[in-house]
Amino acid sequence: MSSDNQSQILSRLQGIVGEDKVKTDQDSLDTFGKDWTKIYEPKPLAIVFPKSTEEVAELVKAANELEFAIVPSGGRTGLSAGAVAANGEVVIALDRMNTISDFNAIDRTVRCGAGVITEQLQDYAEEQGLFYPVDFASAGSSQIGGNIGTNAGGIKVIKYGMTRDWVAGMKVVTGKGDVLELNKDLVKNNTGYDLRQLFIGGEGTLGIVTEATMRLDRAPKDLSVLVLGVPEFEAIMDVLHAFQNKLDLTAFEFFSDKAMRKVLARGDVPAPFETQAEYYALLEFEAENEELVNSAMEVFEYCVEQGWVLDGVISQSETQAQNLWRLREDISETIAEWTPYKNDISVVVSKVPPFLREIEEVVNREYPDFEIIWFGHIGDGNLHLNILKPEGLAKEEFFEKCAKVSTWVFEIVEKYQGSVSAEHGVGMTKKPYLQYTRSEVEIEYMRAMKRVFDPKNVMNPGKVIDL
Amino acid sequence: MSSDNQSQILSRLQGIVGEDKVKTDQDSLDTFGKDWTKIYEPKPLAIVFPKSTEEVAELVKAANELEFAIVPSGGRTGLSAGAVAANGEVVIALDRMNTISDFNAIDRTVRCGAGVITEQLQDYAEEQGLFYPVDFASAGSSQIGGNIGTNAGGIKVIKYGMTRDWVAGMKVVTGKGDVLELNKDLVKNNTGYDLRQLFIGGEGTLGIVTEATMRLDRAPKDLSVLVLGVPEFEAIMDVLHAFQNKLDLTAFEFFSDKAMRKVLARGDVPAPFETQAEYYALLEFEAENEELVNSAMEVFEYCVEQGWVLDGVISQSETQAQNLWRLREDISETIAEWTPYKNDISVVVSKVPPFLREIEEVVNREYPDFEIIWFGHIGDGNLHLNILKPEGLAKEEFFEKCAKVSTWVFEIVEKYQGSVSAEHGVGMTKKPYLQYTRSEVEIEYMRAMKRVFDPKNVMNPGKVIDL
Repeated sequence: MSSDNQSQILSRLQGIVGEDKVKTDQDSLDTFGKDWTKIYEPKPLAIVFPKSTEEVAELVKAANELEFAIVPSGGRTGLSAGAVAANGEVVIALDRMNTISDFNAIDRTVRCGAGVITEQLQDYAEEQGLFYPVDFASAGSSQIGGNIGTNAGGIKVIKYGMTRDWVAGMKVVTGKGDVLELNKDLVKNNTGYDLRQLFIGGEGTLGIVTEATMRLDRAPKDLSVLVLGVPEFEAIMDVLHAFQNKLDLTAFEFFSDKAMRKVLARGDVPAPFETQAEYYALLEFEAENEELVNSAMEVFEYCVEQGWVLDGVISQSETQAQNLWRLREDISETIAEWTPYKNDISVVVSKVPPFLREIEEVVNREYPDFEIIWFGHIGDGNLHLNILKPEGLAKEEFFEKCAKVSTWVFEIVEKYQGSVSAEHGVGMTKKPYLQYTRSEVEIEYMRAMKRVFDPKNVMNPGKVIDL
Repeated sequence: MSSDNQSQILSRLQGIVGEDKVKTDQDSLDTFGKDWTKIYEPKPLAIVFPKSTEEVAELVKAANELEFAIVPSGGRTGLSAGAVAANGEVVIALDRMNTISDFNAIDRTVRCGAGVITEQLQDYAEEQGLFYPVDFASAGSSQIGGNIGTNAGGIKVIKYGMTRDWVAGMKVVTGKGDVLELNKDLVKNNTGYDLRQLFIGGEGTLGIVTEATMRLDRAPKDLSVLVLGVPEFEAIMDVLHAFQNKLDLTAFEFFSDKAMRKVLARGDVPAPFETQAEYYALLEFEAENEELVNSAMEVFEYCVEQGWVLDGVISQSETQAQNLWRLREDISETIAEWTPYKNDISVVVSKVPPFLREIEEVVNREYPDFEIIWFGHIGDGNLHLNILKPEGLAKEEFFEKCAKVSTWVFEIVEKYQGSVSAEHGVGMTKKPYLQYTRSEVEIEYMRAMKRVFDPKNVMNPGKVIDL
């Protein structure tokens, strides 16, 4: 891009959002040009901070006219480089569109600007005696617009589903600059193709979500947490099945002993019990009455009798519940110092055990010095594979070897008809592997969708698919 | 179409599905050429009965090549003429693809051919100790493929959602004849645009669903039914809100006294109680333990104190629960003898009272002799408006007047940002009114979707949108 071009673009941006809402200082470019992947060097042209859907539409029209690329930016907590601007793009940061309004107690809905922080919505719901159930580690920074763009999942999916299930309606600016108000917040609306669904999980490649009406739910009551020690992976599935037959679980997570030992070594939380097991399952359910607690205890005893569970604990207080949750939730942060290779994959729940074994086998065979840390949302078939860098190994060599691991992993994903990205999206990091989950003809239809909503390829180009 | 052309088409169809699986006798043409709307005269060219996705794909490819139109046909219980073949189309009836297979107890999923009857799936689920929750009056005839194509709703949407929420994966033949296997039955799969969602509710205009993996749920326990007499419509919303704050309702329906009197007059079911009220609310919940029943009783008493409820009854047996349900479910059949005008509309729940009043006002003012019968899924904001033909009025004149009613109703729908079709789809009957719910630019994007998946317009042409 010539500098003439650049200054033309910058002056247009300033005309739309105001001079002080266009940032080109290095600090802003570095901050807003990347997400949590951190493997790409941010190189945006500018960061703009619109305050309304109209301004966003103007920006997109300018992009079509002056032929510059846009990267929509939320909380930038993504792990697939979906919000990275590494090629002179204009980053549209939705931070200023962070108003929560129009709460309706009967409909249990609330309108959110795309820039509303997930936790801000969770807190708002709580103030109304209600609950926004999509929750995950980065909820304190991620934004609702980004949650929708990536169809964010997290730790409560087994009961509450993904972000997709909580979007009653939305306003979106398409790649052509059209403003669509989709679904009018209706529960029932069978009037042709539900276009809303394409933008949910579309990673900002078809348009930018600027506002959304989010559904809230009844607040869960008396959440109890159980942590169970399980001697072998297969038994986790038996435990899941046994509990699901008796209780509506709000979470079913798992982690390996290796993962837990690292968390315990930090000394922040106590061990759940003395017995050591190869794996642990963490269950959560609403213990609203004694019957339900008794029911859970009966299933627990049955699982012990069957040899599926070695030991277990049930939370007796909110603090204990929180500590048990930390055994699972602190893993990611704890292992960060080992520069872990991370992968987020899924299969249908019943296929998880052989799928996990097969991945373990190939990694152990090829790189016996690699330490694998497993954890994840097992109730949804979603595994987070983490491999720690051996101490003596140089970073570059480790990542080279990990690239090979990725290919083996994705070949196994394909064999088990799984997903190369369960909840983290495609962005740039998973784009080369998309064909392991989506067929060539599906990808061709995806390209056609892109051409319909964004014919000039201005919206987050280079993410999800290449044209 | 010339007769040469016709015989070329017929011979190609026979080549694909076999001679005896192509029907052209008048009886078959009449039966398979229409749905429950019955206002269009069926005129299909032929009815074909494929047995596999491959045969369906061959049929669609033949349609593209020989330029004939296809109407996909399920149980033909639709009320919007989505499955009517009135223009020499080839009807593809999925009846033979009715196998249920691959049940998985861990994943709680089962594979269904498109021709599986909804009730067949419900029964199958029950045999496995599980539950298929999408239910409605025509479940004994409607087929899963049609349920998906129309995103069927029904009486349990308040808790379980629409058909969309139960499709784990599907096989679909696009209008171009491509076979897509969508989502691989995964709970979590964030790998780009979720194309599955376009075919759900697409009314067979983008492609034909040939198989689907449906999710099943835990069977509900100890369902209790409450019927409450409510003196004025606004109070129904207060009652809904009060109960929802304390219980997870599995249904919340309403009907007017006029509707109930007609059902009672048939003498099949007893009145719920002696007190007469202008409206009745029917609630259902899982009375799993005494605490929940007490909780329901407390809310009931509170509602009586507030003057929102005049009288009420809670089912004491399964038979009584069924009889209470019949007060609601028998309405449609009961009023059929009055040749009713029917409309299926929705708004967000909180706007239902003024919306209903406004419709009543205009109809009462313009046609004071028209008797309005209201009922519907009030917990979802979904109203079924029924107007009975006055005895002295000729059918033709009644329908002419009703066409005017439709326009007034849809203008009010637009004012309240509602839907011109809550759950019955667009088909042909709602197509002229689509713009009251979907903006012109939305409809233009819908046309673009159609051009992508069905560029030669062979799939159910003339339904949902015109190109």
